[in-house]
Amino acid sequence: MIKVHGVSASPFVRKVLAVMAIKDLPFEHIPQMPFTDDAEFRRISPLGKVPALEDGDLVVNDSKVICQYLEDAYPQPPVYPTDYREKSRARWYEELGGTRVAEFAAGIFFQRFLRPVMLKQETDEALVESLINDKLPPMLDYLESQVPVDGFMFGDLGVADIALASPFVNASYAGYKVDAERWPGFAGFYRRVVEHPVMAPLLAADIKALGLSR
Amino acid sequence: MIKVHGVSASPFVRKVLAVMAIKDLPFEHIPQMPFTDDAEFRRISPLGKVPALEDGDLVVNDSKVICQYLEDAYPQPPVYPTDYREKSRARWYEELGGTRVAEFAAGIFFQRFLRPVMLKQETDEALVESLINDKLPPMLDYLESQVPVDGFMFGDLGVADIALASPFVNASYAGYKVDAERWPGFAGFYRRVVEHPVMAPLLAADIKALGLSR
Repeated sequence: MIKVHGVSASPFVRKVLAVMAIKDLPFEHIPQMPFTDDAEFRRISPLGKVPALEDGDLVVNDSKVICQYLEDAYPQPPVYPTDYREKSRARWYEELGGTRVAEFAAGIFFQRFLRPVMLKQETDEALVESLINDKLPPMLDYLESQVPVDGFMFGDLGVADIALASPFVNASYAGYKVDAERWPGFAGFYRRVVEHPVMAPLLAADIKALGLSR
Repeated sequence: MIKVHGVSASPFVRKVLAVMAIKDLPFEHIPQMPFTDDAEFRRISPLGKVPALEDGDLVVNDSKVICQYLEDAYPQPPVYPTDYREKSRARWYEELGGTRVAEFAAGIFFQRFLRPVMLKQETDEALVESLINDKLPPMLDYLESQVPVDGFMFGDLGVADIALASPFVNASYAGYKVDAERWPGFAGFYRRVVEHPVMAPLLAADIKALGLSR
């Protein structure tokens, strides 16, 4: 059976869990924390990052590589567009969601939740203010120009949607909410993603695991 | 005709130029510097990063997304393995080459070449020492365990090989050389990549453009 290693509150693990759910694949979930010195885990994940996936004797690292592997190995239903031009756009959104969007939006979660609650460190409030006031607005302007008025990026819920929304899920756990007056398109898109029957149970499980309530 | 935007000394642009050469695709090369405020370029590259590729009315960003797009649109000869299990390994090496390996190896180039020569800033020598003595050795130990004794990762020269070697090309422009006594496997692999008929002319052009000599 496939094994997915990684705590579900990671935006990258969440993306893989969502793809597993869309493809209705049975799996064992090991809620591994990242960056431990656990030698057994380092054998699976050379950088100590999550998620990592095992499928029989094959080990796959990096959430993008994992999602593409799952698409290749278990094609139905697809989580990327089948047209290769659209697929390149989906991959770009996935890349953006995993780099700058994660740095900015999941960065709020890291500073305002993980540091004080989990790591017993102080929040860098100046950094958080800069993320919210300087970094995110131009990114949200761009995303506002990209998202559809209804539905998802490429028809059914797929990797592009999950990758762009997932860091904002983490930001929401730290009290950040996308301003729906300023970015109505993206705020609506985000709501559709998190209310999707695949995503809603994942968020409910996070909220329980993180000791949050709504 | 395809347009490739980006200075060729970037390890990420170099990867795309090598793929264009392997696939023997005609293209126009625009040696764009990254992170300029040029509005025209920002329209093509939302983050201001290089490489960016235009193919007719399609714009593709991020070197991984570009290489995969080129593979999909122009399949012959392939630059990724065709078996999807091997392909996931190739993608992992590409990801690693573009993240930690680039951060460490191309980081030496940034500090020791770009900062003093191009940006008129001081080299952070403490950082360079840490990259060389602390960060790179465990990475090179890992790479040593992955590379083949002869030839390339998956038969002919492909994206995985180029992505892993390319940051070390930049490090070499700043005087860093992989210790062939400590890591004979990777040092030999690196030499085979840079001496390949596709790569050698790219490096020769870099050396001219950067005003280096050997």
